[in-house]
Amino acid sequence: MKTINTIWRRFICTLAADSFTEYRAAAVVIGNEVLSGKTKDTNSNYLARVLFENGVRLTRIETIPDLAEDIIQTVSKLSSSVDYVFTSGGIGPTHDDITYQSICDAFGLTLRTHEPTLAAITVDYTSKGKRLNAAIRRMALLPYPADRIITTPGLWVPTVQCRNVFILPGIPSLFQKMVDSVLKSIDCGSKRLRLSLTILVGESEIADRLANVQKQFPEVEIGSYPKLNPEMPEVCSVQLCFTSTDHYAAKRALAAFQKTLQT
Amino acid sequence: MKTINTIWRRFICTLAADSFTEYRAAAVVIGNEVLSGKTKDTNSNYLARVLFENGVRLTRIETIPDLAEDIIQTVSKLSSSVDYVFTSGGIGPTHDDITYQSICDAFGLTLRTHEPTLAAITVDYTSKGKRLNAAIRRMALLPYPADRIITTPGLWVPTVQCRNVFILPGIPSLFQKMVDSVLKSIDCGSKRLRLSLTILVGESEIADRLANVQKQFPEVEIGSYPKLNPEMPEVCSVQLCFTSTDHYAAKRALAAFQKTLQT
Repeated sequence: MKTINTIWRRFICTLAADSFTEYRAAAVVIGNEVLSGKTKDTNSNYLARVLFENGVRLTRIETIPDLAEDIIQTVSKLSSSVDYVFTSGGIGPTHDDITYQSICDAFGLTLRTHEPTLAAITVDYTSKGKRLNAAIRRMALLPYPADRIITTPGLWVPTVQCRNVFILPGIPSLFQKMVDSVLKSIDCGSKRLRLSLTILVGESEIADRLANVQKQFPEVEIGSYPKLNPEMPEVCSVQLCFTSTDHYAAKRALAAFQKTLQT
Repeated sequence: MKTINTIWRRFICTLAADSFTEYRAAAVVIGNEVLSGKTKDTNSNYLARVLFENGVRLTRIETIPDLAEDIIQTVSKLSSSVDYVFTSGGIGPTHDDITYQSICDAFGLTLRTHEPTLAAITVDYTSKGKRLNAAIRRMALLPYPADRIITTPGLWVPTVQCRNVFILPGIPSLFQKMVDSVLKSIDCGSKRLRLSLTILVGESEIADRLANVQKQFPEVEIGSYPKLNPEMPEVCSVQLCFTSTDHYAAKRALAAFQKTLQT
């Protein structure tokens, strides 16, 4: 009986392990304008939200300047430590747009005109009555060989995939559409469930009870986020989040915490 | 005559180098809530803006999870590569607040009750009719020995400085006040001047002219930021920024670019 029980337990463990593949991602925001405070980066928050919704865990965001050395070193490091890297910025036609070239340098690739992209640019510009010049043509110079060129309906600018790196523009409206296209084309993981609870107490009043529930449910990420209201400093509130790929465990952890509030 | 000229040139070069000390900073945003998209990080943008205004160059922002290993590794690396590191988040009373402990682990320090902070907490809590508990007392457990404990008028939570790392809370209203206090207490550099110009053309139409001006003024950072208006896609505009600690050079670079527009 003991042997059967052990085998059965092992089987359950294997099942649980197999049913959950976690994909991990990192973001690289490239831009002096973000580091000097001129521009608020909204791309990383958009990416964070859609990755969460799609079951991919964003483990890191690095915001770096428009410097080749920083791009090469950061992209190389992250490419080998997570499943997917998303870069934002630096793919326009001006001298400060050096992302394609830097990623070529990181991976031993070269820039080469991508004819379908040049054709799409030509259609777009001529339909607007504009003439192509050298700067416009440069935007069709893409890393070669790329692993994939992912197009987005309605846009001529493609998402170039080099290894596990997806190269995206900094303009938020383009970034968002292109991230959505990429997510449709890659493997994602099990979606995490996030349950929230806001209570009108100070964080320190529930800290010990919350720590006990965290110990009981190590598979659930329990986050505690106090809110201060400057107009009513005497009213404390705290938002608690219970997040897990194991949806049942998240619900049980929340219920266990709620039970502690009754005592 | 030639010799004098050479000496004179050298003297000018030395003067220029001495008159400019650039301080460099990095930010570490600690929080699963930012990486899952639940919370928009606003602290790094605030920090970026005030560092720019105070003449400190922000070279990197890293957003990482509430994991000791990530905090230790990131803070250690950045501490040795820039002049100042600012961390945000993870110093409250709950189990997910592990920044103080992690920075102790990074630098071989220990947590010890900081009596002036405990006294300030006691005054604050008792004035609100609240009783101190273990979780509240834990917030006075600060890295020891710290290099400095910087206080901010009206707040009991201090900014702990360990080596060149300033440990700040994630709550934006506190973060902002405390950054302002820190900046009054550290050496800052020469302020950079940023001149902006917005023109109603596509980026590719001015790319070559801009690249030429950049070559003429290597001491000026020239950034080009296209704006798309989804409601009027046929109207292109681009914002150009000319940024430098050499204010005269920034003005000259802008003037040189404006001159190219007349041809």
